[in-house]
Amino acid sequence: MTTARRDTGARRDTYTPESLLAVAVTVFNERGYDGTSMEHLSKAAGISKSSIYHHVTGKEELLRRAVSRALDGLFGILDEQPARAGRAIERLEYVTRRMVEVLTGELPYVTLLLRVRGNTDTERWAMERRREFDHQVAQLLRAAAADGDVRGDIEVRLATRLVFGMINSLVEWYRPDGGGIGDREVADAVVELVFQGLRKAG
Amino acid sequence: MTTARRDTGARRDTYTPESLLAVAVTVFNERGYDGTSMEHLSKAAGISKSSIYHHVTGKEELLRRAVSRALDGLFGILDEQPARAGRAIERLEYVTRRMVEVLTGELPYVTLLLRVRGNTDTERWAMERRREFDHQVAQLLRAAAADGDVRGDIEVRLATRLVFGMINSLVEWYRPDGGGIGDREVADAVVELVFQGLRKAG
Repeated sequence: MTTARRDTGARRDTYTPESLLAVAVTVFNERGYDGTSMEHLSKAAGISKSSIYHHVTGKEELLRRAVSRALDGLFGILDEQPARAGRAIERLEYVTRRMVEVLTGELPYVTLLLRVRGNTDTERWAMERRREFDHQVAQLLRAAAADGDVRGDIEVRLATRLVFGMINSLVEWYRPDGGGIGDREVADAVVELVFQGLRKAG
Repeated sequence: MTTARRDTGARRDTYTPESLLAVAVTVFNERGYDGTSMEHLSKAAGISKSSIYHHVTGKEELLRRAVSRALDGLFGILDEQPARAGRAIERLEYVTRRMVEVLTGELPYVTLLLRVRGNTDTERWAMERRREFDHQVAQLLRAAAADGDVRGDIEVRLATRLVFGMINSLVEWYRPDGGGIGDREVADAVVELVFQGLRKAG
């Protein structure tokens, strides 16, 4: 530690696993995971590379922890009571709202998850888990269609892609500090749009 | 030309402005505009850098032509008869459908437009034009709301962002060669979802 401070002007390492992860995720989102080196992480955190290795085995472990946080948030939704019981269309509506809440609440982690490209084992694992989540939501939509609660003229896989497209686009423009739009308002608008559409019922 | 072939094994330059642009856009989308050098373009096109300079002043001109093609496609929609006359909600529905058609028809050009980040004058100009297009569509939604044809509980700017989010997400997964989903089917599904929503009217 002392050596590191003398060598690089680095600050004392007071990081917890969570606070170091937050720094890493910011750098990954700015530079891309591939474009981030341990040197970049060390500079952004203000501690030496060896201090970072004291916390983790390397940048891939940081990636795994970061995307796990996003995936745990998303899969956690499916275990919640209103996602498990009741009519499929109501469960789907609940899951849609909660997805928006997880996206806005865990914004940098989900942003990273949505941007991984599959160059490492961890990235491929993350993409695989993401596809599994999409698949489970699509199953819910399929069940709602089987119940006769969904318009018959949109193919389930296509509808799932479009709904995920709308929700995931939040990472491009939603900022927790506002622009005047709160997370509750966004969740309400997404649910309203996805389930009722824009047009006022005639 | 002869020199180029001797030096680099480059092929004879039979490019038209359009075919050279198609190559450039592919490279821009793969490497990012910032990450693309004239060297990359020369290699991808199989002609020398000086041959490329015979066609254009540099990579920024290629970017300008490429995003112009996307922007001309989008702004062209607003000049079409069904986008100009009639009830605002019907015009909006027409514009939504045509946006999907332009996105799927001009996929690489619109993909590039959606990814520019504002580091050069041309990129900033493209982002400005894109915002202007978004603004005009938002105005149409505002007019439809004023007519009483839109549900009252979604704020116009937020709804515009979400609808654009859904449509723009197409560049992430739509491929003209299929996966079994045609452009017509996608346009129908987007219009259905945006205007009617998923839930079957009670």
